[in-house]
Amino acid sequence: MRNIDEDTITQAVIARHAQAPDARLRDIMTSLVQHLHAFAREVKLTEAEWFAGIQFLTDTGHMCNDKRQEFILLSDTLGLSMLVTAMNHRRPPGCTEATVLGPFHVEDNQRYELGADITNGAPGEPCYVRGHVRGLDGEAVAGAELQVWQADADGFYDVQYEGLDQHRARGTLHSAADGSFHFKTVVACEYPVPTDGPGGKMLKALGRHAWRPAHLHFMIAAPGYRRLITHIFRNGDRYLDSDAVFGVRSSLIADWVRHEPGTAPDGTQSATPFYTLDFDFVLEKE
Amino acid sequence: MRNIDEDTITQAVIARHAQAPDARLRDIMTSLVQHLHAFAREVKLTEAEWFAGIQFLTDTGHMCNDKRQEFILLSDTLGLSMLVTAMNHRRPPGCTEATVLGPFHVEDNQRYELGADITNGAPGEPCYVRGHVRGLDGEAVAGAELQVWQADADGFYDVQYEGLDQHRARGTLHSAADGSFHFKTVVACEYPVPTDGPGGKMLKALGRHAWRPAHLHFMIAAPGYRRLITHIFRNGDRYLDSDAVFGVRSSLIADWVRHEPGTAPDGTQSATPFYTLDFDFVLEKE
Repeated sequence: MRNIDEDTITQAVIARHAQAPDARLRDIMTSLVQHLHAFAREVKLTEAEWFAGIQFLTDTGHMCNDKRQEFILLSDTLGLSMLVTAMNHRRPPGCTEATVLGPFHVEDNQRYELGADITNGAPGEPCYVRGHVRGLDGEAVAGAELQVWQADADGFYDVQYEGLDQHRARGTLHSAADGSFHFKTVVACEYPVPTDGPGGKMLKALGRHAWRPAHLHFMIAAPGYRRLITHIFRNGDRYLDSDAVFGVRSSLIADWVRHEPGTAPDGTQSATPFYTLDFDFVLEKE
Repeated sequence: MRNIDEDTITQAVIARHAQAPDARLRDIMTSLVQHLHAFAREVKLTEAEWFAGIQFLTDTGHMCNDKRQEFILLSDTLGLSMLVTAMNHRRPPGCTEATVLGPFHVEDNQRYELGADITNGAPGEPCYVRGHVRGLDGEAVAGAELQVWQADADGFYDVQYEGLDQHRARGTLHSAADGSFHFKTVVACEYPVPTDGPGGKMLKALGRHAWRPAHLHFMIAAPGYRRLITHIFRNGDRYLDSDAVFGVRSSLIADWVRHEPGTAPDGTQSATPFYTLDFDFVLEKE
């Protein structure tokens, strides 16, 4: 161990944790060290580049607080989040596919009755969302908890507004006895991921745009079924083929149908155009 | 790009930066994404483990400030720093080998005359350091700038003391016309890298100790020669075979000779034991 050089150092580092008490941690760190070193060798990393990397990671850490998670943004934009999601949610054919959680989910959600308007002041055109939660055999899943969240017409989630102390276009509902659900919200719009930090700087330097296609987030949980975290994407969106976080699956794209002013699905008269979105979710049994 | 899955996502991410204006950045990010994804696949990273990683990086970032660089500590303890140093400082046989810079170098250093005592109150047994700076052909390198820094008898660098506003056991000297240098300091002692942050937590979880063998840092610069960043390690130290940052090279180990009280190299009478350390540096021409 006194003559470690650029060829022997990887094995030397790995040997050092051979006695780690946690075998899983040991395996993870062995792979991490091998890939970290292989990366440095492959690109012949210079000392200036190494230091730029240290500074970038430091800036990323300093950007993180209780409302902003810049490392998740990095993971999302480098495709790691979608890879981890895909590996951990291999579903049988017929089940709704999962996609990334994203940084805007909130634990403490407001509960609504079926049919409620969850808009709560969020700007945007009205949208009536309807569907069913079912199992793979077609059985209705009653009482499934559906958490919903989305960006508004200005491309912002409620939690991105400074000083806004209530949820908007965000809520929790429960499916009916026949597995159905419906609620009113605003049309979800495309938006750029935050670009004022290191993540945005990276995208710019790589010649990449920061946009995500319009989508509506769902987290669906029901006893006896695996929890599903997914989006519904809006058909026709110009960013469907270049989502900044690689979250699009074609099975998750749906038509958001525009209607002229008239009778809305809830029986009220709408003086403005409105949209309907129909989507059924299929859960996998635990 | 609408059917990205766990098998196709790596190529999809790489394709996204194919038009990056900076070709070097593009190559680095291509390799980084490949290894990041290969790591996640190889260990079958779970979502909980992914989030633990996000949290670990965030904590590491929050630990960094103008006096503490936790990401460098991570790089050091994972062997990346030594790998980058070794790759970028391949020296011809006969030249002094380089090793890691470490986190305790200071840009704004105090200048001393040859023969000076740079201790300035640092606790420890006196040590007289002597040597020459030469080129590979044996030529004396006159006027070489030698920056020196080290831990004291308590295992701390001056910059680790809260409220200490002067340098201790740290200074800059210049070699004489014959390339020689000499100064007085205290004996450098073994010490643990900081263990109160995520880096220390990682070492503990991996069953690793945090100790570095005793060493004296040098940064040597002279016109016409490549700058050398290295340590001299103390022969006999119990951590020479398990340096927490993998910095030891056997060619950098030297005897720190203990002397009984008596006449010191500077002609003074020492009432206590003292040490001498002799080491010659060989620089590579630019």
